[in-house]
Amino acid sequence: MEEVLHSNFETLYPQIKSAINNANFITIDAEFSGIYSEKCLKHSLFDTLNDRYETLKKNIQQFAIVQFGIGTFHHIPFENAYKTKCFNFYLFPKSVLLKNRKLSWQVTSLNFLCKHNFDFNKFLNDGICYLNEPDEKLLKDCLTKYDLANIVEHLLFEEEIELNECKNQISKWMARSEDIKLKLQVTNPTLQYILHKDLRNNYNNIWTTSDNKSIIMLKVKSDMQNFVSKQEDNLEEVLLNSLTEFSKIFKLLSSSKKFIVGHNMLLDLMFMHQQFYKPLPDSYIEFKNNIHTLFPEIYDTKFLSFELRKLYNTEDRGHLVPWELNSLSTLYEYFMAKGRFLSFNSPKIILSQEFSVQKRYHSAGWDAYFAGYIFVKMAHIFCVKKFGLGVEERIVTHSELISSVKKFVNSVNISRSNEIYMKFGGDDPILSRPEWLHVKLKSPSIDIKELIKKFSSFGTVDVMPFADRCFLVAVSNHNSAINILQSFKNDSEIQMIPYSRLKHRKHIGLWSGAVLSGGLFIWLLKKYF
Amino acid sequence: MEEVLHSNFETLYPQIKSAINNANFITIDAEFSGIYSEKCLKHSLFDTLNDRYETLKKNIQQFAIVQFGIGTFHHIPFENAYKTKCFNFYLFPKSVLLKNRKLSWQVTSLNFLCKHNFDFNKFLNDGICYLNEPDEKLLKDCLTKYDLANIVEHLLFEEEIELNECKNQISKWMARSEDIKLKLQVTNPTLQYILHKDLRNNYNNIWTTSDNKSIIMLKVKSDMQNFVSKQEDNLEEVLLNSLTEFSKIFKLLSSSKKFIVGHNMLLDLMFMHQQFYKPLPDSYIEFKNNIHTLFPEIYDTKFLSFELRKLYNTEDRGHLVPWELNSLSTLYEYFMAKGRFLSFNSPKIILSQEFSVQKRYHSAGWDAYFAGYIFVKMAHIFCVKKFGLGVEERIVTHSELISSVKKFVNSVNISRSNEIYMKFGGDDPILSRPEWLHVKLKSPSIDIKELIKKFSSFGTVDVMPFADRCFLVAVSNHNSAINILQSFKNDSEIQMIPYSRLKHRKHIGLWSGAVLSGGLFIWLLKKYF
Repeated sequence: MEEVLHSNFETLYPQIKSAINNANFITIDAEFSGIYSEKCLKHSLFDTLNDRYETLKKNIQQFAIVQFGIGTFHHIPFENAYKTKCFNFYLFPKSVLLKNRKLSWQVTSLNFLCKHNFDFNKFLNDGICYLNEPDEKLLKDCLTKYDLANIVEHLLFEEEIELNECKNQISKWMARSEDIKLKLQVTNPTLQYILHKDLRNNYNNIWTTSDNKSIIMLKVKSDMQNFVSKQEDNLEEVLLNSLTEFSKIFKLLSSSKKFIVGHNMLLDLMFMHQQFYKPLPDSYIEFKNNIHTLFPEIYDTKFLSFELRKLYNTEDRGHLVPWELNSLSTLYEYFMAKGRFLSFNSPKIILSQEFSVQKRYHSAGWDAYFAGYIFVKMAHIFCVKKFGLGVEERIVTHSELISSVKKFVNSVNISRSNEIYMKFGGDDPILSRPEWLHVKLKSPSIDIKELIKKFSSFGTVDVMPFADRCFLVAVSNHNSAINILQSFKNDSEIQMIPYSRLKHRKHIGLWSGAVLSGGLFIWLLKKYF
Repeated sequence: MEEVLHSNFETLYPQIKSAINNANFITIDAEFSGIYSEKCLKHSLFDTLNDRYETLKKNIQQFAIVQFGIGTFHHIPFENAYKTKCFNFYLFPKSVLLKNRKLSWQVTSLNFLCKHNFDFNKFLNDGICYLNEPDEKLLKDCLTKYDLANIVEHLLFEEEIELNECKNQISKWMARSEDIKLKLQVTNPTLQYILHKDLRNNYNNIWTTSDNKSIIMLKVKSDMQNFVSKQEDNLEEVLLNSLTEFSKIFKLLSSSKKFIVGHNMLLDLMFMHQQFYKPLPDSYIEFKNNIHTLFPEIYDTKFLSFELRKLYNTEDRGHLVPWELNSLSTLYEYFMAKGRFLSFNSPKIILSQEFSVQKRYHSAGWDAYFAGYIFVKMAHIFCVKKFGLGVEERIVTHSELISSVKKFVNSVNISRSNEIYMKFGGDDPILSRPEWLHVKLKSPSIDIKELIKKFSSFGTVDVMPFADRCFLVAVSNHNSAINILQSFKNDSEIQMIPYSRLKHRKHIGLWSGAVLSGGLFIWLLKKYF
């Protein structure tokens, strides 16, 4: 696993580029600075996909990806293996002209990353920068149209102070004839640009150069003036490059048109859209189209794991697929242990890099590795299912493996709604969730909390007030719905029937409503009907 | 200088308390996570104090103090000295029930703090927590009213995950009879509370205890049950204490009623109000009253330095007070060097602590020290001015020193408006700034940028479009106004007269307007009239 930082970006870039271009598929993972901006937000079984998109969009806008992981998987047929390289990028939004960039953190996310060894000093001092497409264009325009004085006028307060301090030191240095060299610590790329430009424009006896963290000035003899004047090359390009390092990687990913694998990847995709491509559109359909254009083929291992469980439920081999929780770590550990038998003779995953960083969960680079690992293992099980047990006796081809999961392409998992999913590049599936149930209280003494208690043993439920003494109940699957209806058929306190839009909708408009679930939270009711 | 962190807070608290209570005066300083939330914001000479308050309030709401400095200054008459202790607090907003706490950073502020050696690892892993009064009350109420199940239901997503991981490890440990002790890393105070409470309520053979970062569980023999049951004490108090460490310090500061000194302290006061007291009120007057109640006597060394300069301007001894820039560092360095002669025989400042941290600017604890240093030096100059040069031959008393600056009490400097200030505990001063100037263009060819260029050699100016071919110009002092009027008396391109509200106000309402200043920025015009 390689850690990619501003200081080694240029060195590693060719390696990353060739790894992406040679991969059979690419895995991704991201760590965020936060996901909830509201006080209390949990998702509800009453959500439509459009509701879900709008809520997430509103909540994530102020947050950012602070670490991005990329895994490249290259199939080696004769070894029955995938060779993989993983890259872990620390992303830091450096200051850029015409923007006052801010970075918001949820305190619990800070704690979470601290606990999982996120290195904040690397992030702050050596993170790599990015711009989305409109911001990149804005900066390009500004560098074309503005003169240096104009650019200086647009600096932020702290930048102005720093620039003045630098200028002060430079003029003192110029006055000291015995000092040939001056090195100033300047990490801000815009300030580096301004200082280079200013010195090169106005002094033909000063040679300027940079390293990552500083600018270096050298007094040269007058017969080197021609040499010095040749320095005028591409300061604008240098500035643009240093502010768009990760944007370049994002463009590589997208233009490679390789298929992309992630685990529970809806948020990753939304963050990537807003941070590297464009602000999230208001329209859910437009978002789906944009993602599909950027990444025509994506696979979500969380979605795959639900499909895999279904397979074994119906065949009553459930004891072999025992995961109740299908988190990335549970699945990886399952396939490292008991799951090996289920994925017998599946391709090995070989990491073709030194372990410069210890393997661990919630480090984006490693999570990308784990996602690729379980993808191959699950795909192999689907492959055996498709082509028969004979496959376990031979080496499968990459095409066979992928053809076995083809029907799950572009299907992305949605939390708290395990029977629906988001489908990119096509229409979302028609809801297969059970109809809501309509509850009428026979006695006024019972309250909504008691109601939730009554149903909670049947699985995940959400309850929403509907009319006087009436409630709607959403359950996550048909079995629970049938069980609840049967159990409460002759209940003395409540009367329960499937909700009918025709029969019950006359109540609409009376309730601005609140949904309560097992978690007793409040939810603003939107247009559900 | 002492660094105060969560891990040493309890040890240092008695020392901090006695230092505050024994001080003759107290200095403060704060470092912020950001101050501008808008894209581009600079202050204008057209601002009223009310405008200024509203703009700052809107801009700082999402940001926080991340480091707070306190200096305590105790007068030792026989030594002609003040003994001082300084404390540097890292402040981190830990997660608290019923709030989804967020922390926003301006990227330039992050860079600024990085450059000045702010230790982000100390901040994140060992910062001390605070609640303002309404949040403290909310938490107290919640701990009184909610049972444990209720509290668990209000955890945030990442907290729920962490709690479940802990519970999982604890039940595994319980099953392993040979393991007597379990230590789990739990830094979140609410999770520590829940685990202690749950274990103590449900298991009388388990002893639980904590250190800063972890919870420790011990299996005990059944004959120790009585002993264990006595542990039920004060878990709520422990939780409250760990979340309100800095709130306690703030209350100490306020209840001590010692006078408070800071440098350019308006933002410090506003941040302190919102972070430790209450959200900032909409009413500017209410804000002023609240601060005056909390801190009845405050001195702003930036304001004092302007008053001092005035003194020497009029006496034509300006060469002795050469500061053009009156930043904290410039003033401190001035009084350490040339300024020593001006403050001859003034009280020495003796730091009565080890230097555990190197002296440097923009570390809040040290900046509090510097503010106290220059306060004493300036007060001594005012003292000599008041009581005569004979004072330089003897030791002044603390009362003499303070009586010499008494007329400046509760006057706080306002940036970009150096002839007005904010007065706490009374009415703000009547504006002594010059009337605005009214400019009418004789030819339409001249634009606002050229106009600014024309005036900028006369000092700070702001220009605002007013009516067709008319502009208003605000200048920072009377001299500049007079100079501008004289210089442009017979100008061929513009006609210039003092602005008259009666004569010119008919134009009001035509312009939603924009102010342009030397910085060429846009400013939304509010109700100035």
